[in-house]
Amino acid sequence: MRLASYFMPTLKEDPSEAQIVSHRLMLRAGMIRQVSAGIYSWLPLGFRVLKKIEQITREEMDAAGCLELLMPTLQPADLWRESGRYDDYGKEMLRIRDRHDRDMVYGPTNEELITDIFRHSIKSYRDLPKNLYHIQWKFRDEVRPRFGIMRGREFFMKDGYSFDLDYDGALRSYFNMYLAYSRTFRRMGLSAIPVKAESGAIGGDLSHEFLILAETGESQLYYDQQITELDAESIAADADAETITQFLGRYYAAVDNKHTDWADSGVPQARRREHTGIEVGHIFYFGTKYSEPLGASVAGPDGSEVSVHMGSYGVGVSRLVGAIIEASHDSDGIVWPEAVAPFKVGLINLKPGDAACGDAARELYDGLRRAGIDVLYDDTEERAGAKFATMDLIGLPWQVTVGPKGLRGGTVEVKQRRNGDKEEVSLASALSHLSAA
Amino acid sequence: MRLASYFMPTLKEDPSEAQIVSHRLMLRAGMIRQVSAGIYSWLPLGFRVLKKIEQITREEMDAAGCLELLMPTLQPADLWRESGRYDDYGKEMLRIRDRHDRDMVYGPTNEELITDIFRHSIKSYRDLPKNLYHIQWKFRDEVRPRFGIMRGREFFMKDGYSFDLDYDGALRSYFNMYLAYSRTFRRMGLSAIPVKAESGAIGGDLSHEFLILAETGESQLYYDQQITELDAESIAADADAETITQFLGRYYAAVDNKHTDWADSGVPQARRREHTGIEVGHIFYFGTKYSEPLGASVAGPDGSEVSVHMGSYGVGVSRLVGAIIEASHDSDGIVWPEAVAPFKVGLINLKPGDAACGDAARELYDGLRRAGIDVLYDDTEERAGAKFATMDLIGLPWQVTVGPKGLRGGTVEVKQRRNGDKEEVSLASALSHLSAA
Repeated sequence: MRLASYFMPTLKEDPSEAQIVSHRLMLRAGMIRQVSAGIYSWLPLGFRVLKKIEQITREEMDAAGCLELLMPTLQPADLWRESGRYDDYGKEMLRIRDRHDRDMVYGPTNEELITDIFRHSIKSYRDLPKNLYHIQWKFRDEVRPRFGIMRGREFFMKDGYSFDLDYDGALRSYFNMYLAYSRTFRRMGLSAIPVKAESGAIGGDLSHEFLILAETGESQLYYDQQITELDAESIAADADAETITQFLGRYYAAVDNKHTDWADSGVPQARRREHTGIEVGHIFYFGTKYSEPLGASVAGPDGSEVSVHMGSYGVGVSRLVGAIIEASHDSDGIVWPEAVAPFKVGLINLKPGDAACGDAARELYDGLRRAGIDVLYDDTEERAGAKFATMDLIGLPWQVTVGPKGLRGGTVEVKQRRNGDKEEVSLASALSHLSAA
Repeated sequence: MRLASYFMPTLKEDPSEAQIVSHRLMLRAGMIRQVSAGIYSWLPLGFRVLKKIEQITREEMDAAGCLELLMPTLQPADLWRESGRYDDYGKEMLRIRDRHDRDMVYGPTNEELITDIFRHSIKSYRDLPKNLYHIQWKFRDEVRPRFGIMRGREFFMKDGYSFDLDYDGALRSYFNMYLAYSRTFRRMGLSAIPVKAESGAIGGDLSHEFLILAETGESQLYYDQQITELDAESIAADADAETITQFLGRYYAAVDNKHTDWADSGVPQARRREHTGIEVGHIFYFGTKYSEPLGASVAGPDGSEVSVHMGSYGVGVSRLVGAIIEASHDSDGIVWPEAVAPFKVGLINLKPGDAACGDAARELYDGLRRAGIDVLYDDTEERAGAKFATMDLIGLPWQVTVGPKGLRGGTVEVKQRRNGDKEEVSLASALSHLSAA
C-alpha cells in the first residue's frame, strides 16, 4: 500500500478525550474515529488489525472443531422473555421497537438465539457434541462508555456455544475451549492467564476469564508463575471430569478482592506474581440454565428426553485491538506483535523526488509484495523526521529506510521496531531477510 | 468437513412460507433459519457462501484501488438531520433511542457517515481521488419483508463512496466502479447487465443498476445482446468525461416501463433480448448532494474551497446468495457456480461400515484436503438415495461416490452437478482430476 494514496489520518497532538494509552495511540495513528459515545468507525489501518485478530480467532476455533455460523444483530424480545432475561438484563440491553410495534433487542450476547436454533434442528444425542460460534457485532448500552474501543457500546465479539448430553461431556467441551483460548491468545503474541471467575449475567457453575498482562490493566492479578508455562495439552482429549477439574485448579490465579493472602494460596514464595491485567476472553459452563426454559432437549441413548448441557465462550475481538496496544507499546507508539500487525513492513523513501531512491524503494516494494508481504510504502513528500515518527507511532514490526546517503554505499537501513536495532544491508539482503523473518 | 459432525439441518418437505425458489432451497438445504420477519441466521452452509461472495467483492474492490474500512451499524440521528434525510427516509429507517434518550438509527446506508469521516480528515485536493468502502450489516424496516434473504430487513451489503475534486474526476471514479462491478459479478459466474436507472432516495444525476438474468427475476429487462459482450476495459483509465458518457450509453438496456418500444431503441432485430432480472448492484453519481450540506470540501489547486463530488456504489452481498440460486438451480436443487460454492466437492461413502469403502473415502478426503480443496464428506449412516438427493439439493459442483461395487473394480464415480455427467475413474485419477478442475 502506498501511503500517498492510503487513508491514514494521523494526529500530531494527543487527543484530549483519551484517558488511556491504547485509546490515545489508536486515535493518533488514525485507526479509529468516534461516531458517537462508545461507537467507532474502524479506519483502514485499524480495520486491518481487527481483521487479523478475527482471522486468528476463527482459525483456532475451526481447529478446535467448532462450526461457524452467523446470527443477526437484532433479535426478537420474545426469545429473551422465554429465558427470563428480558427484564433481568436492565438498561444495558438496547431495546428497539420496529414499524409494526414489535419489540426487538440489539443482541448483547446470543445464548437465547443459539438455543432457539439448536432446539429446532437437533433432536438426538447422536448429533452431540456440537460447538457453534459466530463473530458478530454486539451492543451493550454502557452507562459511561470509555477507554475507546476497550469499553465501547458497539463491539465485535466471537461468541461460541457448546451442547452436550451430560456434565462430563460439557466439561470436556469447556476444557477444549480453555485450551483453544490459550492457543488463540498465544498466537497473537499475548501471555494470557486463565482465572477462575464469577459467572455474572450469563449464570452458571464454572467460568474462567482470560486476562492478558498490561501495565494499564483494569484488574490486579495474583498468579502462580507456573500457570504461564503449563502445558495444558498434556491431558488426553477424552479425559474424565475429575482429571479436568483437577487440571483447572492446578495453579493459583485470582483477581482483586478474590485474592486475600498469598500465605493461603499455597504458592511458593518464588513463584508468586502480581500484575495488572485486562480481560480478553471469558468461558462459562452453565448446564441447563437456558436449555430447560427454552426446551432444548434431545432423545438420549435410552430414548428419554434430556435437556442439553451448555457452555458459552467469548473472545473480545475489537477489545483485543486495544488490549494488545496496552500490552505492547513504548513512548514512541504502538509495537505490534507480528501476527496482528496491520502491515509487516514500513518502507520509507527519504527522497521521493530522487530517481535512485525512487527506483530502489519501488524495487523493494515490488519484491516484498511478490513475496506475499504486507508493506506500507511511505512515498509522501513529508520530511524525514515526520516519516520516522509516523512509522514508530503505527508500530509496524520492520522499518526499511531508503535514502540517498545509504544508496551511494549500496545499502538501506533495516530497523526492528520492538528493540530499535538497526542494520545497514544491501537491497537484496533486505529483501531476503524480510521475506524470511 | 465430515457431515456426521457438521450442522446442516436439511428439510425433507418444502417449507410452506417460501414463495420463491431460492428461499425454498435455502431453507431446505439448511443454509438459513428465520429469526424474525426479514431477519435470518446464516447456518454453516449458508455462511460459507456468504463469505465467498463477500471475499470476491472485497478482492475486486481492492484491485480497483478502493480502501476498506468499517463503519458501525448504529449512527447518530443528528448526522441524518444535517443532510435532511432524517425526515425524508420514512419508516424504512429503524429509529432507536438509547438509555440517555439520544436518537440513533440503524444505518440503512452510509452517505452521511462516510461524508462525516471525510470532512474531518481530508482537506486538500492532493488527497483525492479517494474511494472508501465497507462491508457491513444494514437494516431497512421493510413493511412486508419477503422472498427470504432477497428482501430481508437486516442484510449484508458492500457500500463504497468516491470523492473527487470535480465532475470529470467523479465520472472516472464512477466508471472505474462500473468496470469493477462487471468483473465482480462475472467472477461469481453471473451475467450482469448494467441498466441506466433512477437515483431514488440516494438522489443524484447518474446511476446504473446491475441486474442478473434469472427466470424468477423481479424486473423485466430489455437489452441489446451486445451489452453482455462489451469489452468495457477497452477505454483508457484516464478517458475524458465525454468518452465515458458515450461508452455508458453505447448499448441499449432498460427495465419494465422504461422500455416503450423496441422500434425506438435503435437495436437491430437480431440483437433484441428480453429476460427477467434481479438487481444485485447499484452505482450512483450525485455530485455535491451530501458534501454541500455536510461541509465536505477541500482546498483546490488555486486555494479556494471546493465541495467534493461524490458517488456511492452498492453490492447486495447477502441478496446475491439468493440471486445466484435464482439464476442457477434445477428441479433437484441448487447448482452453485464453483467460485461461490460452499464446498467444491461432495464425497459420498455409500457404506461407511465397510472397511474398503471407509479406507477409500478417507484416502480421497485426506488427499483432496491436502490439495487445498473444500470437501464435504458424507460419512453418515443414511441410505444411498437420501445421500444422493441431499448432495443434489445443496448443489456442490462435484460429487464423488465411493461404493463397494465400484471399489471391486478399483473405481469411484465422479459426477458433475451442472450437467449430471458421470464417469467411473480410479481413486488416483479422481484425486488428480478434481485437484486440477
